[in-house]
This record gives sequence, structure tokens and C-alpha cells, in this order.
Amino acid sequence: MSNRDREVGIGLIGFGTIGRGVVRVLGQNAAVISERLGARLRLVRIADLDTETDRGVDLEGIHFDSDAKALIADPAVDIVVELIGGTGAARALVADAIAAGKHVVTANKALLAHHGSEIFAQAAAAGVDVAFEASVGGGIPVLRALREGLAADRVLSIEGILNGTTNYILSEMEATGEAFEVILKRAQDLGYAEADPTFDIDGIDAAQKLGILVAMAFGAELDVDSIPTQGLRDLAPIDFEMARELGFRVKMLGIAREAAGEGDDRIEARVHPALISLGSQLASVDGAMNAVLIVGDAVGPTLYYGAGAGEMPTASAVVADAIEIGREILRGAGAGRVPPLSRPLEALHSRELVPTDELHGRAYLRFEVTDEPGVLSKVTGALGANDIGIESVLQRGPASAGGSISVVVLTHAAPEAALRKAVAEIDEWPEVRARTLFVRIQENRE
Amino acid sequence: MSNRDREVGIGLIGFGTIGRGVVRVLGQNAAVISERLGARLRLVRIADLDTETDRGVDLEGIHFDSDAKALIADPAVDIVVELIGGTGAARALVADAIAAGKHVVTANKALLAHHGSEIFAQAAAAGVDVAFEASVGGGIPVLRALREGLAADRVLSIEGILNGTTNYILSEMEATGEAFEVILKRAQDLGYAEADPTFDIDGIDAAQKLGILVAMAFGAELDVDSIPTQGLRDLAPIDFEMARELGFRVKMLGIAREAAGEGDDRIEARVHPALISLGSQLASVDGAMNAVLIVGDAVGPTLYYGAGAGEMPTASAVVADAIEIGREILRGAGAGRVPPLSRPLEALHSRELVPTDELHGRAYLRFEVTDEPGVLSKVTGALGANDIGIESVLQRGPASAGGSISVVVLTHAAPEAALRKAVAEIDEWPEVRARTLFVRIQENRE
Repeated sequence: MSNRDREVGIGLIGFGTIGRGVVRVLGQNAAVISERLGARLRLVRIADLDTETDRGVDLEGIHFDSDAKALIADPAVDIVVELIGGTGAARALVADAIAAGKHVVTANKALLAHHGSEIFAQAAAAGVDVAFEASVGGGIPVLRALREGLAADRVLSIEGILNGTTNYILSEMEATGEAFEVILKRAQDLGYAEADPTFDIDGIDAAQKLGILVAMAFGAELDVDSIPTQGLRDLAPIDFEMARELGFRVKMLGIAREAAGEGDDRIEARVHPALISLGSQLASVDGAMNAVLIVGDAVGPTLYYGAGAGEMPTASAVVADAIEIGREILRGAGAGRVPPLSRPLEALHSRELVPTDELHGRAYLRFEVTDEPGVLSKVTGALGANDIGIESVLQRGPASAGGSISVVVLTHAAPEAALRKAVAEIDEWPEVRARTLFVRIQENRE
Repeated sequence: MSNRDREVGIGLIGFGTIGRGVVRVLGQNAAVISERLGARLRLVRIADLDTETDRGVDLEGIHFDSDAKALIADPAVDIVVELIGGTGAARALVADAIAAGKHVVTANKALLAHHGSEIFAQAAAAGVDVAFEASVGGGIPVLRALREGLAADRVLSIEGILNGTTNYILSEMEATGEAFEVILKRAQDLGYAEADPTFDIDGIDAAQKLGILVAMAFGAELDVDSIPTQGLRDLAPIDFEMARELGFRVKMLGIAREAAGEGDDRIEARVHPALISLGSQLASVDGAMNAVLIVGDAVGPTLYYGAGAGEMPTASAVVADAIEIGREILRGAGAGRVPPLSRPLEALHSRELVPTDELHGRAYLRFEVTDEPGVLSKVTGALGANDIGIESVLQRGPASAGGSISVVVLTHAAPEAALRKAVAEIDEWPEVRARTLFVRIQENRE
């Protein structure tokens, strides 16, 4: 039997937006996919608890019910695509699929960030592959690039715009000058943000993706819940204006590198809004797009840009993973061509995070203070007393009589502990009308 | 014998700059490469006609002489890395290596653009792999992204800054306001441009890379020598200034897409300077960096950015290819995991190019005319008579008494044939002091 007569069977668990995208991609690109794979990639079966809603796609010839167990057991299913999300049912079903000898493709970053090693060990023992390109950067093939394209490099650093919702909100706040709450509401109305936006807005989603990137880049298992995150709720329209005046844009970044010190095995990893140079590649990533900057010791800076979420982009990555696994099925080469996290599982080890107090860098500080003579010199004096040098000071306001004025300070590079201490001291003053905003400057590594 | 005790042997033919980079990468990253591959990637042997020059790298344990044939025949060599370049000796040696059952890694875009199908057919027949990530975009893993990451997509378009030398010259012309010849001379002094710069400056190098991308994206074999190219010799400092005033930057692009018409099997492919929107990702690619924007029907726009040339970035891609082949050697899976051009060779076919006269789009025209009343209205009148709408007109000069004035016209979208005809007519006028500059506008597809 030639490959042309053969097929690779897919079973899809979870028929939401991305699932519908998978049906669409397999349909509209069936010819080119068959040509590349040398066989048909056939969606055999779909399981979802909701079998009623019309997804508006053609399901002819596809068995669709709510029975995920039967889907996994179906001998026509070679690859199980898990698109339920979360770490509950998805975790059990992925384990079941692996135990049944099925390959798995998933877009589930929460599952991999929290239980990746467990799942990869199960897969290795069962002789199946688990592919997860869609879990980071949506449609951008950034995991492939990191794992295989940069296989000859020692990774020096990763910086990414890893969450489309927050990048959309920041882009809109900058473009319109409107407040965070207004833009968030609009994003929710447009379906770009969830009713409960915490997962995106506070950096949890980005931290999970960063955890996967860190495991792949540095062979480091992190406790992703302990990755420090700072959300963007405290940013105000004035910050975008001030940032631009200082030569920066504000972006929500996931940042990771190995600790610099000799013999220091720890990892620096964090998610927060940061000021980055205007004119840098990351600074021009707008709207819901994502981008990841990976610096290797040989290759230097490389950047991967594209849609970080959405029906068709995410489905593109899911189906590409299925094609890759399909190739191995067809040639009978067995699983495990490339270790899922770039190194063999036994080479991964748990590594501590560098506490943010040990960071060192420039910062953007916005003080909201009463409009009185001498307050600016008092602020700068307090920074000086903590050995914090000042690069620029900008002042605005008050917006109305009796209102506070905004004093923005761009500091020279300083220990973060000193910066935090100075800000904490200043925040105790009676002249201070609101908690001071602290945003790190991320130096350009492009 | 476990993988840990095993090794994969590399033989390097051509010990120039990139060859030295390969030695360095294999040395400095030996530990991480062994960990990822599960075996040692050992440089067994080097062949180069020049065995005298000290390359400043440690060659202990590596057999180094001028005998490429003996290198190919050496049973310890599993993978032959061809870094000679060109289509003469390299072509014969690659054929010899394949015939001897050796896998090949090459950075040679000229060889692949002109003789790719022949080489891939030889490799398929001999059961070996030919890998060539370094041939396009230097260290950027863009071929992997296109071939595997976007395997589920129909590619809609490719636009790339594919040549670092020309991007460096354009960036410098814009930054300094100096003339092309001055910047070229400086680039040559710095080693960024060859003594004979034709290959880069006139777009030949970019056309070869574009040919490889087109073959992979569209399954199309092109006669790369017939890809229309326009070099950057006619650009002047004023063009960068005018472009910026109109909201654009000038970039040398390789552009390709399938012809739009129903049943039209042809390919649009060309290399030329183009005006692209300020603020687009490609517009912020500076200096010697490269970037490729690939739009897929499912994934949408994706972009890959990094160093397009240079010792260590190119070596990074070469060694990553060797690691990928090494994995297949170690698992005994045989060659041909992925077709080198994404589709099986028999699915590739020769396709015609769309002549540039059939293009349709906006253009930037710079007329150099005598400083006389009425000349501007005469120019715009001639464009109107050819049904060419005008979006903006800018005028500068004269720089000195009796000098010419520069009239810059940004047209509305128009058939290129009409634009060329109008320009040819105008260029006959006695008021015209130099050939009119014609630069296409590339609309933003990000």
C-alpha cells in the first residue's frame, strides 16, 4: 500500500473555537496537507460535552459525540488532539490517550507548565509523542525554532510578548489615551478578553508560557506559580505618553535568562510591563500579535512574530504538529525523534528563581504627589539618599485645581532592592497621593 | 552501546569564515549539543585548498588537509558539510558525497537555487539527507518554520529582507544622508561588502534565496536567473527623506506570491527596493539583519528575524542541521523524514513568472527636471493622461543655481505597464535631467 492510499487518523477532544479551526484547516487545506504528508490526514472523530451547538462547519463523515473515552479507544484514531484546556479533565484524558498508545497534540499551556514532566515521562514510557507547538505563541512556530533551529546554541535570553490580550490593551491604551478599565471593557465586548480577565491581565497566562520556554531553553523545571508577575492594572494613559517622550513603548513581557554569576544555577524569570526602546522589533508588535526574541550565543538575536491566539492561527500550529507526528507514523520510525523539551528528560532539573530584589536595572517611577513647592526636590533627594542616580525627570499636572501632579523619574541602573526601598519610603509621605508606579526598563538586546 | 558513547562524525569542506564558525560552535557548545543529541557531534576532518592560513581555532584531533575526496571517503565521516560556495567544485563534491552515502549540510544558496532538484533527486536515490537551513536567512531558522511550522498552511505571500549587505547600505544611507558610493566604499572597508559587490547590490543573492523559498512555499521551480531584480544603485539620499515624509522606509525586498487569477499557475517573484510602511515589522529591520514575512492562509502573518549572514549565525544553522541529521543516524530511522522542499520531489513543477508589466500597485517616482515654471504641472499632466492617479507630490531643490529640481510623486495604485509607459514618455522630454527613479510601494501585509 503506497502512502497515497494511507491515512493518519485524528481524534479531537474539545470542540470550541480552536477545535472548529482544526476542522476548518483540515478541510480547506486537505490537498496541500496530503501532498506534504504523502497521506490523508483525516479527522475521524470529535468528542465534546456540548453536542448541540452548531459550530458552522461541515462534519460529514466525522463521528461526533460526547464520549472522549471511546474516541481514545477508537483504533482509527492515531493522534488525539486535546483542546479542552485546564489541568482537570484534560490531564486525565491526555494520560488515558498516552496509556492507550495514542500520540497527543495539545495547545494546553497550563497542563504542560504544571505537569509537563509527568506527561512527557508517560509518553516516553508508552512510546508515543506529545506535541505542543500551539501552547506558546499560538500559530508562531517558536517552539520548533527554539528546539531544533537553535539546537546548536546556548540560549542567553528570552523576551516575549506572550499574551495577545494584554498587548491589545496596551496598544489601545496608547493609541486612544483611554483608561485601562475602558479598554478592558471594550476588549471584553469584542471577545478579546475573558469575563474574568485575571488570567491574562495579571500575567498568569504569560508565566505559564514562559515556564515552557524556560524548560526548553535552559533545561530548567520551574515552579511556574512562583514566577513573579506584575499585571497592568496600575498603568495609566500618562505612562504611555511619558514613555514615548523618553524614547520607549510599554509592553507586557515574559523575560528569562540564566543567572549571571559564576556557579549560580538559578534562573531569572518574570512577567511584567516594561519600557522597551522605540524602534526595537518588540516595540513595533501591535494589537493582539505576539513575538518572542531569543538570543543565542552563536546565532545572536532572533525574533519570531505572529498571531499568538485565535481560531485559525492556533489550529495551524495544532495541524502542523499532527503532520509531523503523521510523518513518523507513516515511516514507522517510532516516537521520540526529538526530546520534547530539547534535552532528554533526565537532563532536566529543578532550578530556583532569582528573587526580583536581586535584579539590577533602570526603572520608570511615577509618583503622584501634591502640587507643592519642593516636592520634586524631596523625591529626587530621597532617591539620591538611596544611591539611585537619575537620568530624566518629567512633571505633569495637576489636571485640576488641587489635584496631584505626576512626577516621572527615569533612573540610572540600580539594584532593585534599593529602588523598592526608596519607593516604599516615599510612599509613606503625606505628600504622596497614590501608590508609586514602578516599571522596569528592559534594555534592547536585538 | 548507549547513545552517550556514540558519536556522529562531521567532515568539513571549505575552511573559510563560516567553516571557522562551525569549528567554534562545535567547540564552545559541545556539552549542550551532546546533551541534546544524546551523542557527541565530532568534527573528524577538514579539507581546504589553503592549509597554511592560521584560522585561530583549535584543531587538535581534527585531520586537516586539502583532500576533499579522502574526506568524503573517510568512514568516520557521516555528514559532509559543504562550505565552498558556488556551483563549480561544490556541485561535484556534493554529488560525490551523496554517491558515497554521506548526508550533506550546505549553506550554498547558488547551488540549491540552480541545481536543487538534481541534488535532492540524487540524495533521495542514495537514501541520504541534504540540509540547507543556512542557505536562506543565515542563522534564522526560517526554512524549518516554513517547511514544518507552517506545514498546515497554504502560503499566501513571502516578503523578505534577504541580503544583509544591501540592508546595511540602505540603513546607513538613511542614517547619514550620504551617497550610495560613499556607503558602499565604507561597507567594503568594513568587510560587509565584497570587492565586487554586484552579487549583493544588484539583488542576485536575494533572488537565489527567494528561489529556494518559492520552491518550498509553492512547490514551484523557477528559473532563478529570470527573477526580475532591481538594484539600489539609483537611490539617492533624498529618497530616504522623501519616503519618511510620506510615511515609508526604503528596504530591498524579495517578494513572491502565486498569481491571483483563477487558473493562473504562474508565480510573482521579484527583488527590488520598495517603500514599506513606517511602523511595520520589516521597516524596523536595521543594519545587516534579515527578516522574512510569511503569510499563511490559516496562521496569518508570521515573521522571522535575525542575522542573515556572518560567521557564528551561519554556523549556528549549519550545526543545527547536523544535529537534526545526527538524530536520524542515531535512531537508525533512515533519511527523508521531511521532503527537502516540503512536498515530494514529483509534486514540484516548473512554473512561469508573471512579467512585471502585469503588476498593479502604487509607485514612488522621482523626476529630476529643470527648474522652470510649469514643469510640475506638465509631469502630473502626463501621468493623468496615462490614467495614473496621484496621491502626493513633493518638490525639492534646486540644490544650486541652475541645478535640477526633484519632483517626487506617490501614485495611486495603477498598472505597472501604464506607469512604465508614462515614465518612458517623460524621460524623453528636454526638461528631464536624469532617468526617473521608479520604486514600488509594498503594501503592509502584517
